[in-house]
Amino acid sequence: MNVAERYAGVEISQIRKMNALAKPDTINLGIGQLPYPLAESIKNAGILAFESGEAKYTANIGDENLRKAVIKEYNEENSLNYQENNVVITNGSQGAIWNIFSVYLNFGDKVLLPNICFSAYETIIKIHGAKVIFYKLDENFQIDTADFEKKLNSNPDAKFALINSPSNPCGSVFSEEQIRKICEITNKTECFIISDEVYNKLYFGEKPLSPAKFAKNCITVNGISKRCAATGLRIGWAVAKKEIIENLVVANQYTCTCANNISQLAAIQAFSSKTETFCEEVRKKLEENANILYNALLQIPEISAVKPQGAFYCMANISRFGTSKDVSMSILENCNVLTIPGIAFGADADKYIRISFAVESELLKTALERMKGGIRKI
Amino acid sequence: MNVAERYAGVEISQIRKMNALAKPDTINLGIGQLPYPLAESIKNAGILAFESGEAKYTANIGDENLRKAVIKEYNEENSLNYQENNVVITNGSQGAIWNIFSVYLNFGDKVLLPNICFSAYETIIKIHGAKVIFYKLDENFQIDTADFEKKLNSNPDAKFALINSPSNPCGSVFSEEQIRKICEITNKTECFIISDEVYNKLYFGEKPLSPAKFAKNCITVNGISKRCAATGLRIGWAVAKKEIIENLVVANQYTCTCANNISQLAAIQAFSSKTETFCEEVRKKLEENANILYNALLQIPEISAVKPQGAFYCMANISRFGTSKDVSMSILENCNVLTIPGIAFGADADKYIRISFAVESELLKTALERMKGGIRKI
Repeated sequence: MNVAERYAGVEISQIRKMNALAKPDTINLGIGQLPYPLAESIKNAGILAFESGEAKYTANIGDENLRKAVIKEYNEENSLNYQENNVVITNGSQGAIWNIFSVYLNFGDKVLLPNICFSAYETIIKIHGAKVIFYKLDENFQIDTADFEKKLNSNPDAKFALINSPSNPCGSVFSEEQIRKICEITNKTECFIISDEVYNKLYFGEKPLSPAKFAKNCITVNGISKRCAATGLRIGWAVAKKEIIENLVVANQYTCTCANNISQLAAIQAFSSKTETFCEEVRKKLEENANILYNALLQIPEISAVKPQGAFYCMANISRFGTSKDVSMSILENCNVLTIPGIAFGADADKYIRISFAVESELLKTALERMKGGIRKI
Repeated sequence: MNVAERYAGVEISQIRKMNALAKPDTINLGIGQLPYPLAESIKNAGILAFESGEAKYTANIGDENLRKAVIKEYNEENSLNYQENNVVITNGSQGAIWNIFSVYLNFGDKVLLPNICFSAYETIIKIHGAKVIFYKLDENFQIDTADFEKKLNSNPDAKFALINSPSNPCGSVFSEEQIRKICEITNKTECFIISDEVYNKLYFGEKPLSPAKFAKNCITVNGISKRCAATGLRIGWAVAKKEIIENLVVANQYTCTCANNISQLAAIQAFSSKTETFCEEVRKKLEENANILYNALLQIPEISAVKPQGAFYCMANISRFGTSKDVSMSILENCNVLTIPGIAFGADADKYIRISFAVESELLKTALERMKGGIRKI
């Protein structure tokens, strides 16, 4: 049986395909998750929730107390006054992204995406028959606001403009000036900003700022996956105006009914002071790793890189050695280290390989030693 | 912002809307889940999984050991020889249904559904631009195989025919003869049977039989939600030929990445002998409740009903009192008992209200006492 037109040519992402090549002893700098155990307070709450034996549906919109916790943090960070019905709990932030595009994109609609970004955005947009317009990130992986303005002006009917800070795969954090400028440009149109903030607790300098603070129309996407070492729990959310959330709840019902109830209860602890301490420690470890990685890359004259400001990725410019796929494959074969070819994040990213530094420092050092030896064999 | 055309007119289901009207002291005979705590062995495995602190992504296709357990049961029940890559773990069986229709339905495609069925099927089909052809269930809620044949013959290009046994909302279990006949008819075409078997462990007489045993083309959908009192864990699956599963895995990646990893580990215990004992006890309790309910309905001469054979629903014919919505609303107002108007399951079901007997027997008796008193006030 042939797949429907919407799925024609749609494949498992390059990230997942590459990860499938890892052998048991491969050092995996490919997958997007922290190597640490789940944050302790969430783990304990999860155990308690299971002990209660209460494994029942939640409302399609999600557990009320979790929604209250999400909104409390959101209001504090953005000086807003949203309520718990301004948030829907989804099956990871991936579930939120799917629901938004599925509910709102008609055939032929336009969405602005950064030219280097998480590949699932483009795939989901295309599944729904809509069109991607790329705006440029500059050499430092900051938004080229002039290009953003040009693209939005020449596509004034664009339905959404997505921004992702800290950025996967770039590791950049957009400055307040950039965020304000993007909002200023977008506020002149009816375009909604989708702000994917799933890495917003993982930063090493300036704290990432949400466009929700300045935008006329914004949907914020976030989750506990990256900040709490909780990718397996599949707890994400979207925050927006009530009428938007009502539509996303409908989509949530038909795609998955609701997120896992026990993990929703556990996720309430993501907003506790104990988890804040956990995030603090994660930030320190990641910053140390970012420095180790960046300094090691500096030692290889044929490679250049931008120092990561957030998330746990560094894009290394490997164009002197070949295309990203060839280089990633060579590193895997010669060094038994798994990285993701930049092409997985768009044609403009083929100069780079994405290196995740979300591994224990010693393992990262070993990987870098191996790469240093192996890279010249390419 | 307007929703996309595919979502025009799509609303939260009548089941969820009705359930939202429950007050804290309402006796809820509306929601589709067991009232018991989660099966003990699953609960203990869930606690252990949380204690490990390992909350990481699984493969998009799902945990290997869970898939092996699913397939072992599946092969035993259907005398087949499928492998673990013939199954994808989804976010509840709802996730499987969404993925199947999303991956395969083109605009204008046709799907055969029973004229009285779970409303989400029709909604999801329409979201994907496809067309529903209803085949009839008879007065005993068995498949009218002549009508099924007629409908398939006049729509030989139908992509799918869905059957659901035990049936939500009807409580009927289709006989071996019917299942064989449906397969015989369908095997002459390229139509795939989708067999939603999520209630297949809940039966009071003949054990439900899967069409997978006799069908040329079949996708089987199931999950632990109903059998293990585990609706909150959102663990379902689809079993089919490898090439079908490969496409469903792609959809799984983009809609939700994967199901909750801890609940996947816990769900392996759904196939243990301890959980088989749990299901045995549940069947006994439900059968007792089915008898209580059926005998109580017999006492009300204006109401007729068919004795439930499986699942935990009974459709009571209330047409002497009015439309299903009016009657359900009156019962809620007069008796503080929540039932679901048949109209939620299709226009042909407006003669009925769906009564769930998945409550403690004493509560069911109280509800029936109240209804007996209140029904004549309508």
